Amino acid sequence: MLQTVLNDLGIAVFASSGAMVAIRKGFDLFGIAALGVLTGVSGGVIRDVFLGVHPPTSIQHWPNITVAVAATAVATLTAKHLIRFNHIVLPLDAVGMGFFATSGAAFAVDHGASWFAAVLIGMTTAIGGGIIRDVLVREIPMLMRPADLYAVPALIGATAYAVIDYFGPQWIGLAVGTVLATTLRLAALVFGWRLPTGPPDLIVGEGS
Amino acid sequence: MLQTVLNDLGIAVFASSGAMVAIRKGFDLFGIAALGVLTGVSGGVIRDVFLGVHPPTSIQHWPNITVAVAATAVATLTAKHLIRFNHIVLPLDAVGMGFFATSGAAFAVDHGASWFAAVLIGMTTAIGGGIIRDVLVREIPMLMRPADLYAVPALIGATAYAVIDYFGPQWIGLAVGTVLATTLRLAALVFGWRLPTGPPDLIVGEGS
Amino acid sequence: MLQTVLNDLGIAVFASSGAMVAIRKGFDLFGIAALGVLTGVSGGVIRDVFLGVHPPTSIQHWPNITVAVAATAVATLTAKHLIRFNHIVLPLDAVGMGFFATSGAAFAVDHGASWFAAVLIGMTTAIGGGIIRDVLVREIPMLMRPADLYAVPALIGATAYAVIDYFGPQWIGLAVGTVLATTLRLAALVFGWRLPTGPPDLIVGEGS
Repeated sequence: MLQTVLNDLGIAVFASSGAMVAIRKGFDLFGIAALGVLTGVSGGVIRDVFLGVHPPTSIQHWPNITVAVAATAVATLTAKHLIRFNHIVLPLDAVGMGFFATSGAAFAVDHGASWFAAVLIGMTTAIGGGIIRDVLVREIPMLMRPADLYAVPALIGATAYAVIDYFGPQWIGLAVGTVLATTLRLAALVFGWRLPTGPPDLIVGEGS
Repeated sequence: MLQTVLNDLGIAVFASSGAMVAIRKGFDLFGIAALGVLTGVSGGVIRDVFLGVHPPTSIQHWPNITVAVAATAVATLTAKHLIRFNHIVLPLDAVGMGFFATSGAAFAVDHGASWFAAVLIGMTTAIGGGIIRDVLVREIPMLMRPADLYAVPALIGATAYAVIDYFGPQWIGLAVGTVLATTLRLAALVFGWRLPTGPPDLIVGEGS
Repeated sequence: MLQTVLNDLGIAVFASSGAMVAIRKGFDLFGIAALGVLTGVSGGVIRDVFLGVHPPTSIQHWPNITVAVAATAVATLTAKHLIRFNHIVLPLDAVGMGFFATSGAAFAVDHGASWFAAVLIGMTTAIGGGIIRDVLVREIPMLMRPADLYAVPALIGATAYAVIDYFGPQWIGLAVGTVLATTLRLAALVFGWRLPTGPPDLIVGEGS
């Protein structure tokens, strides 16, 4: 039950972020819905392709994409206001990211992945949608450029899940991993935690 | 028989469109062939990856890619003339799109997809190649920007197929879905049917 | 044993090339590691997705990604020097490309692919990582633009493997295919072998 709420929340927030980017780029309504849906569910679709779940869950069953479409509709109708509420959207996005990283790792373990694979697939579940979104709108993925930590909290949350699941019950791993990834992401936003770049004098051009 | 003709026609037209884009971008002959083949068969390859058909049909069996390579060769040799025949290419493209949307949905149903998944996979079969083409040449996918309807006819054709297949024989669904998607696309071209964007005052930059 | 060395060498060289691009673009350390890993292992991951190997080998087992991460770390620490050693990196890259094309084809044959599919999948194993790298940094894939032959040697090496494997023992095919692809690539670099573009007067814009 709580897992369904967190899953739908994550998809809705991710889809809204995709829809907002599409609106800013001047996409038409199909493009807005498509980018929203792809941002919302692509992480899970990649997870399922890697694990051999055919067809991917979000495609075979209607709830995830329905939530994503509804979220893009709401985002489009309220776009003028939504754009000023980043201080609400970013924390919700952090919760979705944390839950996807951890539940993606759990799903991978349940489908025969190694611990190593579970951590990678968990992180991919959390960040895949954002990467697909950025590639489709011709941006360099935000996750790879210097910005407040996002992928690293996902990686740590998925790792925490795998370690705890190895020793104890899965639900504790899910809870701790989700809270840990979300908290680290929120802390990165508040304190501006970033990773350094490579040697600065080798950077060429505008870098974006 | 008719299905083979429509399949080969669709692949050839899609591959030609990819080859023309590659020629305009100054790609070399391998790049032209590669972009043509990817535009021609990627929709079906994505369909097969989603459905767990390994290796994807177009890769395992030679006819589809052979047709695509032949089409890129013809397109390259006749490029100077082909560029003036959009009024012939666009209707053929509409037929290919309509057939791929519908036959992709039928293929999905035959491989265990739900009705919901069949509609989505049918649409993806029709539009996947064009999206891959645009991403590879660093364009925002044409399908997402304001332009005469393309993906929506594919979605409607695949939906019509699924509804009819639920009640009656598959071949009627195939015929009706293909004709419906193709007709809607042609009508969109003739009458300039488009979807609106989101709030125009939120659009930033050049939008392309 | 030799195969493990060639595999690790190929992944390390590919990963370094991804890391160098990421450093030049101003990515942060996560972005550098991610682009390095994706460049190093994506060819093999696509190969496994096409063949139904779940989860893909590089994700399920730790050695490949560990090699890739180590290579990106070394590349980052030595970037200022590495940038001047293209005359060493390019030949090593040619060896990696040749081995991936051939071993990818062999892996495909061992997993039920047709000869036709094996050739395509071998080439994809060799060039997939570079294409993913270029798409993620918003460049048109280098392989498709006029430049010294790269994909064509991969295609020829994979074809040589398939022909030899059809008649004789697999290891001869592996050896001949790898040497042939690598040699052709090195010759293309030395002699500046390139393919022509399409009709030059149809090329528009900057072409990059």
